[in-house]
Amino acid sequence: MRIDYLSSPLSHLLRSRTSRHFIRSATRTATWNRIPRDTSTMTTVNKTAHPFDKTRFDALLNRRFFYAPAFEIYGGVAGLYDYGPPGSSLQANIIAEWRRHFIVEEAMLELDTTIMTPSPVFEASGHVARFADWMVKDTLNGEVLRADHLVKNVLEARLAGDKEARGAVPVPVATDKKKKKQVKTTAVKLEDAVIAEYESILAQLDNYSGPELGQLMRTHSITNPGSGNPVGEPQQFNLMFASSIGPTGQHPGYLRPETAQGHFLNFSRLLEFNNGRVPFASAQIGRSFRNEISPRAGLLRVREFTMAEIEHFVDPLEKTHTRFSEVAHVELVLLDKYTQASGQTTTRRMTVGEAVKQGVIANETLGYFVARIFAFLVRIGIDEKRLRFRQHMANEMAHYAADCWDAEIQNSVGGWTECVGCADRSAYDLSVHSAKTGQPLVVRQALKEPIVEEKAVAEWDKKSLGKTFKGDAAAVSAAVENMDEAALMRLKGELAQGPAKVQAADGCEFTVEPSMLTIERKTLKTSIREFTPNVIEPSFGLGRILYCLLEHSFWSREQDVERGVLSLPAVVAPTKVLIVPLSARAEFDPLVQEVSSRLRKAGVHARVDDSNTSIGKRYARNDELGTPFGITLDFASVQNRTMTLRERDTTDQRIGSFDDVISTVTDLVFGTIDWSEACQRLPAYDGVQAVE
Amino acid sequence: MRIDYLSSPLSHLLRSRTSRHFIRSATRTATWNRIPRDTSTMTTVNKTAHPFDKTRFDALLNRRFFYAPAFEIYGGVAGLYDYGPPGSSLQANIIAEWRRHFIVEEAMLELDTTIMTPSPVFEASGHVARFADWMVKDTLNGEVLRADHLVKNVLEARLAGDKEARGAVPVPVATDKKKKKQVKTTAVKLEDAVIAEYESILAQLDNYSGPELGQLMRTHSITNPGSGNPVGEPQQFNLMFASSIGPTGQHPGYLRPETAQGHFLNFSRLLEFNNGRVPFASAQIGRSFRNEISPRAGLLRVREFTMAEIEHFVDPLEKTHTRFSEVAHVELVLLDKYTQASGQTTTRRMTVGEAVKQGVIANETLGYFVARIFAFLVRIGIDEKRLRFRQHMANEMAHYAADCWDAEIQNSVGGWTECVGCADRSAYDLSVHSAKTGQPLVVRQALKEPIVEEKAVAEWDKKSLGKTFKGDAAAVSAAVENMDEAALMRLKGELAQGPAKVQAADGCEFTVEPSMLTIERKTLKTSIREFTPNVIEPSFGLGRILYCLLEHSFWSREQDVERGVLSLPAVVAPTKVLIVPLSARAEFDPLVQEVSSRLRKAGVHARVDDSNTSIGKRYARNDELGTPFGITLDFASVQNRTMTLRERDTTDQRIGSFDDVISTVTDLVFGTIDWSEACQRLPAYDGVQAVE
Repeated sequence: MRIDYLSSPLSHLLRSRTSRHFIRSATRTATWNRIPRDTSTMTTVNKTAHPFDKTRFDALLNRRFFYAPAFEIYGGVAGLYDYGPPGSSLQANIIAEWRRHFIVEEAMLELDTTIMTPSPVFEASGHVARFADWMVKDTLNGEVLRADHLVKNVLEARLAGDKEARGAVPVPVATDKKKKKQVKTTAVKLEDAVIAEYESILAQLDNYSGPELGQLMRTHSITNPGSGNPVGEPQQFNLMFASSIGPTGQHPGYLRPETAQGHFLNFSRLLEFNNGRVPFASAQIGRSFRNEISPRAGLLRVREFTMAEIEHFVDPLEKTHTRFSEVAHVELVLLDKYTQASGQTTTRRMTVGEAVKQGVIANETLGYFVARIFAFLVRIGIDEKRLRFRQHMANEMAHYAADCWDAEIQNSVGGWTECVGCADRSAYDLSVHSAKTGQPLVVRQALKEPIVEEKAVAEWDKKSLGKTFKGDAAAVSAAVENMDEAALMRLKGELAQGPAKVQAADGCEFTVEPSMLTIERKTLKTSIREFTPNVIEPSFGLGRILYCLLEHSFWSREQDVERGVLSLPAVVAPTKVLIVPLSARAEFDPLVQEVSSRLRKAGVHARVDDSNTSIGKRYARNDELGTPFGITLDFASVQNRTMTLRERDTTDQRIGSFDDVISTVTDLVFGTIDWSEACQRLPAYDGVQAVE
Repeated sequence: MRIDYLSSPLSHLLRSRTSRHFIRSATRTATWNRIPRDTSTMTTVNKTAHPFDKTRFDALLNRRFFYAPAFEIYGGVAGLYDYGPPGSSLQANIIAEWRRHFIVEEAMLELDTTIMTPSPVFEASGHVARFADWMVKDTLNGEVLRADHLVKNVLEARLAGDKEARGAVPVPVATDKKKKKQVKTTAVKLEDAVIAEYESILAQLDNYSGPELGQLMRTHSITNPGSGNPVGEPQQFNLMFASSIGPTGQHPGYLRPETAQGHFLNFSRLLEFNNGRVPFASAQIGRSFRNEISPRAGLLRVREFTMAEIEHFVDPLEKTHTRFSEVAHVELVLLDKYTQASGQTTTRRMTVGEAVKQGVIANETLGYFVARIFAFLVRIGIDEKRLRFRQHMANEMAHYAADCWDAEIQNSVGGWTECVGCADRSAYDLSVHSAKTGQPLVVRQALKEPIVEEKAVAEWDKKSLGKTFKGDAAAVSAAVENMDEAALMRLKGELAQGPAKVQAADGCEFTVEPSMLTIERKTLKTSIREFTPNVIEPSFGLGRILYCLLEHSFWSREQDVERGVLSLPAVVAPTKVLIVPLSARAEFDPLVQEVSSRLRKAGVHARVDDSNTSIGKRYARNDELGTPFGITLDFASVQNRTMTLRERDTTDQRIGSFDDVISTVTDLVFGTIDWSEACQRLPAYDGVQAVE
């Protein structure tokens, strides 16, 4: 599956305004709601006191080393990022939760397959021929631009210029220094018909082919905005990184652009591992690579990224799901293909049960996974108000796919951005690999009652089949093998007239001579049913999810805009508890050791900060790191064995014995109680020692 | 660091005999010893009843899909493997334990950096020039062979032929079909002097350069054993996979052959994250790639593999370790460099404390990590009798390295095989990247007392420095910057005579004109100490460890050699508990659900096997998967709410209430009790229902 940047139906301008407005008016309240505001001893928090500030947000991520451009001291490389300690932990925790939510919960079969892949695999899958973006070259300076992004950026800039000319507040220019190529807006008013045309183009951008994009550039006089030079005709650029395997240079290979092929190639082994039964799912978390043309959207568009993919293999005649009733009530925000094709972006809320019943979502299994994806994203901290599911339009979807829904998460960089894809890929993948290798990738089921029927049967003259088609013989015979009764009888008719054409799974056509193939109706008794399973594929771009999660979690304290906080849920927070001794004095050491060791035994990841700075500053640093709880050890701890417990969002402090605080914070971290329940266990702390 | 195949000082023959003998006489007893054999109700187990059988072992791993050749249905690619469900779980559990043992225990800073790396990074690190193996080409058929492996295989075959001629039992030929290239032995007796010479060559194989290997081939008439043809002169083949980044093809890149560079490039950010203090360690787990010439040793030599690397940054003047006393008593088997250089392989047992005291291991920090590596390997199930630490010999080690020890694990394929390297790399890595980029990669420490001293100071004519050396200016000035007092005064003397040569960190020489550089002694007051930290680097090849662990865990039941068992410790076993209902009948469903859900809540990974086969067969399948415990649900479970608990190695069965069995198995899995303690909690089960 190709996780791709969403070309949203709204202009970039409209989106970024909507986005800012959205952040101002409707912030993350999902986790916050769990803390009732009427508890008299608790502090109230206004997370929306300051509008979202991308510059401050980026500065925080950079300062705390969540991630940074890779090879920065060598000047960096676009689209490659390194995750620092909090970023790696956050990613590891998201992955651990993904494993629990999907793999463990549904007993999926986990795989770990190789990245380096020999060329024939991607020839069969279609990636060598088609895994490409359209690019154009500046005809004078040779700069390479992605064709759809060029159209989008220029038309959006014109729409923005129009708004400005009509007196709207100018959109602030992003201060990210990396965005040198940002298209400048000029305040030029457009005619209403032109605006409507631009908006309609933008709404369907994913639907255009390369030649169509070239036509649009000519019609609307689109040039390279950086140089003002004209651009050439769109050409395809394959996005796979190429290499070669072994010392002789004779074996071309590619870095996988998705983990999926590793699942398909191991299908027979997986089926055997599952005792020959379907449905079952395989799952894999791993690195993939795409040589993007000119990535400039931070973690949203990168050349190397970690994916998590599930391939759920299912009987094509039985796409119901045994656990569908558990999710049927889940309400989702959906943007269907018909709405988009009509140039609209109106979403509607409906339950998964209703969506499948009405045929909006193709089948129960697909609906089940869409609902599970929703639950996962909300659980790790994505704001459900900024999450929607968008259906692929007809031309956007691969010809073999039955239906496809993207989980789109709204953010300030990419607007509504695809972060998870969930597709019904039919039998395509297993069929093409089976045709190419001649290996049957099928399920065989014993029938309760044998079926006796008259059926068209194709018989090849094996010798001339091999002689004529050589390496393609398996593909040609598989194509005939897969024909239904009607197609076979049609082919029989054609062959009676002379040579006939047969199309293989990869789309190539072959000419079959009448002498090579006999088709006859015969009476057959079948006691085994053999079929190629269909595949439902949920595919997660973890870096995109991580970035959106960070954005949804960020806010600044009402009293001081400089004091940023990341309200990450405990389940994914890099560190769960910060242990803060009043000072680095030796008398606190045994207490620090004791608390650390007890938390470690309880399975709670804690860190000690005994650096030489005030407690307030140490907490402020850890608010930026998203650490949900803090424990302060002071002289009272030495004398009375009490300590205080601080909650990150409210900065509320509670006090209790070592035992009480440790058991309370353990329950908080594992989610068995929330902060209001913790407040019922531990009295408020009113000491001055740790006041910030 | 270059994890490399060990060319052991013993011949392959001797090794493989030693190995077989070893397995026969001394099997894994570490975990087994925890189960006292005198408990009257307990079964005794003889794990050494059958000698290790590689064919059966491989068949088990293949049948249960621990791993398999990648792209198998496409004919496979040498050196690329996919891990199936049990292999992935085993690997994930080894990684989780590694995280706990190293990262969490020592609060290391975890990183996740990119694999695709621009060429300048590996030019600076020396990989572009030197990360290569020597290969030779068959002069007639063009086949490519690795030079050192060729020498080794031919000499070992000759030694084996000699043994055979002298009447020793012939070494059984491995039945692995993949090993087509195995060198055939011919029973030819050798002279004693020749035997001694061959053994001496083999003992020092890692010490030879390419030209020396060429000389050895000529001297000893070594030809391609496959074809009998002569081979050409050894040539270097760079082992990095090359690619190019971006659409223009102008930016060459390589897939990293180790994760280490990602740590070094982020050093300044890591130091800042650690509040400017050393020592600290970064850690990373990730995929690396090496385009091996002709890999044919299963998981021991692969083209793509998962590594876990630690870079511990330390003050070069202070290589003590605060926690050294915790490990000083640990006894290790050591093979030092002097012993090897004298052509011997005699190991000696000593404590880490003693080894550091005697200077066998260079310093405390290195010794600390060697001991921690030992503890980790034994904890996950490596047989400590088949584990030793081998020191690198002078020529084998990079010129900048101060000391290097490999953890070698004995196995049937590679003999004693390097699985972990632990090196003191001095300041090399940070220095070369600093020189190449001009970025200071240093620690700055405030001195308690400022130091006033007279010191030689170099001052450049900046203009002519830049003009003359251009891109190399930073490297040249860094080279002078790094000179000590004596070297600077020597350079001053040379410049007084005319142009002088200066050598940069990468070994290149530059000529400096007297007009460009002034060196004078000046009185300086220093209040900041600035230094480049040294790096201690433990580097783990996880696939090799995993393979050795599987081999060390494998045995067959005394009564039936066909019944293989993998005695994996619970901490790494893919599945901890198998839940086996007597049949798939509906009446067991609620019980299966209840037990599954209670174990899941307790954090114990369990799987249900309700397949349509006998309980005995289901247990046998899970013995092969290494599942340590089994719970049987039968009619007594429905009637009395009791169930039985089975231990994998003894096949011992115990009975108890749901509550008792669940709490006991949870304690067993988390290692808080062992089986003998479990036996005291639960009475023996003597029913016939589940007897196998």
